[in-house]
Amino acid sequence: MTDHNNNDPLVIFMPSGRRGRVSPGTLVLDAARQLGVEIESICGGRLTCNKCRVRLEEGHFAKHAITSTPDHLSSPSAEEVRLLERLDSLDCRLSCNAQIVGDALIFVPEESRAHKQVVRKDATMRVIDLFPAVRQVFVEVDQAELGEHRGDWGRLQEALAAKWELHDLIIDLPVLRELQATLRQGKWAVTVTLWQDREVIDVQPGYAEGVYGLAVDIGSTTIAGFLCDLRTGEILATESMMNPQVTYGEDLMSRVSFAMMHNDGLDKMHTAVIEALNRLAASTAREAGIRQRHIQEAVFVGNTTMIHILLGISPVELGGAPFALANRDSMDVKARELGLRLHRSANVHVLPAEAGHVGADNVAALIAEVPYTLDEVTLLVDVGTNAEIVLGNREWMYSASSPTGPAFEGAQIRFGMRAAPGAIERVRIDPETKVARFRVIGEEAWSDEWQIGPQFAAEAQPKHLAAGICGSGIIEVVAEMFLAGILLPDGRFNPDLDHERITWDDRRGQYMLATAEQSTTGSPILVTQDDVRSIQLAKAALYAGIKLLMNQAELTQVDRIVLAGAFGSYIDPKYAMILGLIPDCELTKVTAVGNAAGDGARIALLNRHKRTEAQRIAEWVTYVETAVHPDFQQEFVGAIHIPHASDAFPHLDGLLPEPVGQRDEVGNGRGERRRRRTRKPQTP
Amino acid sequence: MTDHNNNDPLVIFMPSGRRGRVSPGTLVLDAARQLGVEIESICGGRLTCNKCRVRLEEGHFAKHAITSTPDHLSSPSAEEVRLLERLDSLDCRLSCNAQIVGDALIFVPEESRAHKQVVRKDATMRVIDLFPAVRQVFVEVDQAELGEHRGDWGRLQEALAAKWELHDLIIDLPVLRELQATLRQGKWAVTVTLWQDREVIDVQPGYAEGVYGLAVDIGSTTIAGFLCDLRTGEILATESMMNPQVTYGEDLMSRVSFAMMHNDGLDKMHTAVIEALNRLAASTAREAGIRQRHIQEAVFVGNTTMIHILLGISPVELGGAPFALANRDSMDVKARELGLRLHRSANVHVLPAEAGHVGADNVAALIAEVPYTLDEVTLLVDVGTNAEIVLGNREWMYSASSPTGPAFEGAQIRFGMRAAPGAIERVRIDPETKVARFRVIGEEAWSDEWQIGPQFAAEAQPKHLAAGICGSGIIEVVAEMFLAGILLPDGRFNPDLDHERITWDDRRGQYMLATAEQSTTGSPILVTQDDVRSIQLAKAALYAGIKLLMNQAELTQVDRIVLAGAFGSYIDPKYAMILGLIPDCELTKVTAVGNAAGDGARIALLNRHKRTEAQRIAEWVTYVETAVHPDFQQEFVGAIHIPHASDAFPHLDGLLPEPVGQRDEVGNGRGERRRRRTRKPQTP
Repeated sequence: MTDHNNNDPLVIFMPSGRRGRVSPGTLVLDAARQLGVEIESICGGRLTCNKCRVRLEEGHFAKHAITSTPDHLSSPSAEEVRLLERLDSLDCRLSCNAQIVGDALIFVPEESRAHKQVVRKDATMRVIDLFPAVRQVFVEVDQAELGEHRGDWGRLQEALAAKWELHDLIIDLPVLRELQATLRQGKWAVTVTLWQDREVIDVQPGYAEGVYGLAVDIGSTTIAGFLCDLRTGEILATESMMNPQVTYGEDLMSRVSFAMMHNDGLDKMHTAVIEALNRLAASTAREAGIRQRHIQEAVFVGNTTMIHILLGISPVELGGAPFALANRDSMDVKARELGLRLHRSANVHVLPAEAGHVGADNVAALIAEVPYTLDEVTLLVDVGTNAEIVLGNREWMYSASSPTGPAFEGAQIRFGMRAAPGAIERVRIDPETKVARFRVIGEEAWSDEWQIGPQFAAEAQPKHLAAGICGSGIIEVVAEMFLAGILLPDGRFNPDLDHERITWDDRRGQYMLATAEQSTTGSPILVTQDDVRSIQLAKAALYAGIKLLMNQAELTQVDRIVLAGAFGSYIDPKYAMILGLIPDCELTKVTAVGNAAGDGARIALLNRHKRTEAQRIAEWVTYVETAVHPDFQQEFVGAIHIPHASDAFPHLDGLLPEPVGQRDEVGNGRGERRRRRTRKPQTP
Repeated sequence: MTDHNNNDPLVIFMPSGRRGRVSPGTLVLDAARQLGVEIESICGGRLTCNKCRVRLEEGHFAKHAITSTPDHLSSPSAEEVRLLERLDSLDCRLSCNAQIVGDALIFVPEESRAHKQVVRKDATMRVIDLFPAVRQVFVEVDQAELGEHRGDWGRLQEALAAKWELHDLIIDLPVLRELQATLRQGKWAVTVTLWQDREVIDVQPGYAEGVYGLAVDIGSTTIAGFLCDLRTGEILATESMMNPQVTYGEDLMSRVSFAMMHNDGLDKMHTAVIEALNRLAASTAREAGIRQRHIQEAVFVGNTTMIHILLGISPVELGGAPFALANRDSMDVKARELGLRLHRSANVHVLPAEAGHVGADNVAALIAEVPYTLDEVTLLVDVGTNAEIVLGNREWMYSASSPTGPAFEGAQIRFGMRAAPGAIERVRIDPETKVARFRVIGEEAWSDEWQIGPQFAAEAQPKHLAAGICGSGIIEVVAEMFLAGILLPDGRFNPDLDHERITWDDRRGQYMLATAEQSTTGSPILVTQDDVRSIQLAKAALYAGIKLLMNQAELTQVDRIVLAGAFGSYIDPKYAMILGLIPDCELTKVTAVGNAAGDGARIALLNRHKRTEAQRIAEWVTYVETAVHPDFQQEFVGAIHIPHASDAFPHLDGLLPEPVGQRDEVGNGRGERRRRRTRKPQTP
């Protein structure tokens, strides 16, 4: 940087406070760059993009900057005045046109700052620094002339180097194919779309604006996508759909088996997910009012099996020890190489994985939740068909996965269903009457307030009756059945309980959650002994995984618990703890953050530096192979029971009822023994 | 590099003479690397590739190195001895296994040197340093293990870095897709094929060998391809075929028009050339006994229009001033992106162009002929449908193009044909009898020795009668017609000549070159006044271009002339000079080098450093736009006549006959005037 003497104007930029002297006549935009203040600009001084407005904040001159800035800034041109008038911004100047002529205090409004921040519209309301991999610049190119032979691409490169300091660029062949026509159509002025400031992926005639990206979390069961405006970070459309691969197997292992057993298994699953993603791109684009071919980048996350299949790589090695990944690192691939119909030169970024069973979705959740920046020890649990578990803080971090199976998602449950209208999501059982009241998705009123039957007017009747039970409903009903004494701690139906809601089918109990009248089918909705067993197995697998990580870290307690995933967002932490899905923790420190993997995908889409961070974190986390850990079986068996107040769960004290029924008599297994040994007096 | 004391062994490598001290125990291969001597090695010490044999040349030990090397090299293992025995190389050692234990004088035989030289089997017999962009290395990879999560690609990268010092590699997606299966099939030992030491384009199980490349010169009329073994530089197959685009226009301008006039014009021509290249790849592969999918790289050259169409870029801008190229620089593209069926990850390299009308074919001819390394001034002329002309030496170089049209290739000539069996290629006309004798391609005997007719035995008859006239034949017949006095210097048939071989069609003469009996069709083969005019226009265009470059360089004489191109190979320099295609020059300094563009393509295929050189030269040459030059028309008109001994062509003195007929009377135009003005006495 040039040395400046004390006669040179002093410029201070607010709110950053950066200051320094610049040569008289320096453009405000250039002064900002010199002082490390980033001001947004696409057109680079052509008075087109209007992104670089700043306010001169110098005493009484503030209000009408353009008429009274000669001592600080050069006088505006007639065109600048016209433009500012049109923008209703007469108190502003365009920093690409205003020159610094004297000392100046300049305020850069939020909307003019490059790399703006976006507030995530979710529970945690975090902010994302906007720094997308795709950006646009406007540039004027030397016209082709006789006696000059650089070629159109050569001349465009020179213009980009001179105007935007972009060097060593490459151009994607489809763009080169249309470059000559575009340059002439734009009369040698074009808007260039760059990826990673490295590759030209589009050239449009004249001044153009609009960069869009798609962030997608590919779950085994659900695919969730977010179409974002890369200039503002705004989510223009969201969409979630079933992963069509479920046809080939509900959980990961069955998909791997399908690939192993069928020659065209991988092909079929790859094609299925690509077609789904094309539909997702089309529908989100439609919703956002843009064309599918305007989506210039996509970021994908998912578990390792999903990502392998997405890339057309066989997942077979992930199906057995040592669970070797084909590739652990992040990757960039042309969308068209995968058969994705986005912008013809769009790139696809896939976040890295941690290990064979902890994939890009978990890494995405990490960069969204950043537990690696905290002093507190966080337990992050993302429950899907597989559960990913991360435990740690800024100094260390362990990760693991647990094969919970699809029970938490409503599969393997007799009346289980996806979280859709009519699904029972909340349940309360009266400990005295043993009768349940519940709430279904899409209906405000609890079932005991429903006005059903011919005696009520049609419009008073609930729009949705009960159609089944979704994941969070299953957790609540099993926990409530335990609290009401219907279930014993080992999960069996209390055989001594004689109640009209409980029936027996070959000595296996079943509980009527919703009556025939309350159900869409006209038949009651039941919770069976098998349903309870499925939930017990799933939660034991999850808890055993968590327990192993805690043992590894020599911890008996965590500071906070973050529940991620759609499932995690809907379950009540209290019930999760009663059932023993998660370890003991202060209930106020248990938060549900929704689709953290999807958020992380979106963050990586909006901020390319986060991709570097993701790669670093993915390598840094220590993966613990729980499934083959010698203690896993023991922890698993010990977690089968439904816990209640004990030394393992002090934070549940007072939330649980007095022991009911013949619990002591039927208690067996390790969990029960521990419970008996450690029982403490109950608070009233 | 480590410092060595005088106790360390001194090693001298021959024939390079490089010398230095190395630590005792250093492998010969490593010592060579340390001292900058490159020894071939694929397997890197696995005793598989046998490429790194060296001889110990230390006094009396030379003959049986392996039994008597303890003072210089470590003793060979039993396996090494077995191997050397099998290779009948008991006087050698494998440098990847022999350790240096004392002073040693080591000879590296030609076949063990990395970057070998290949002698070009053509007129000039140049050597090519072998340094292909594609090479193979054998590597052993850590096995995937529980508790280790680098991924297979990560582990392969680490192995390549450790063993071969290859860093920052990328892997093409199709290779990654099969990496896991390949590693396991090869029991964690694989052969990796690298492109530019940057991209992994193939991984094969175990030890494998074989890298092939295709070099192609895409001419407007003819496509010529060379399939090479990239390990030896050997040409395994050559093939030439018609460019199927001729259906859409014979010369460049008509192709450009076709692209301009038809919406699918570019598509059709692009598809046509791609399909032709696929056929070329298939047939050369078949001839070489390899699979088409084993061709791992291709280098393409051609004029700018051909290269634009090859890449799917519209050539329309090349059809009019300012003749702007879409891209002048060299490019690398995946073969599959162009629809080429080579190795699935093969890359295609396209050499750079100089300007809109001087393309990669000319640059290829330059790197093959290297006139930019000489003190002498070279005129390089490549005659095709367009003629490219380069003039210069190591200090300066001009290039230009001249629109000669396809006459030299036999088009626009009534009995013109391609250089195929039956084409008349050599002609002599008796100045007295005016009767021609000729030779056709495929027939040794001249036509006056042919035994035709029922009086001769069938086996004595020529296999090929005359089917037409090819390019070199046209040059000779027109020149001979002039020498025999049939043509006047202005190109008209001598109207005063009454001869049975000359007939008149509406006052336009025609000359019977071959009789009905000598012709395949049973009708005579004629040379018409229009044919002569076509040749005159073509040669005037060519000569005018050359003249402009000479004017630019302020030269009246060149030191040497190189005729490139298939056409240039067959014409007799004397006739070219008599007709006035080329300027005056000592006839011994006029050489025909055949398909120099094809040679250059092959050189770029075999040596990647030559690609860098090509890019540098392409930018360095000064292109002169002849077609719009103010003097072009004048030079063109001045070159229409058929010159003979004059001050412009002193080297023809004595080769030409006395002026015949009424030349002085009919002489007109500038050339004629100059001839008259400058006539010198003829030597006998």
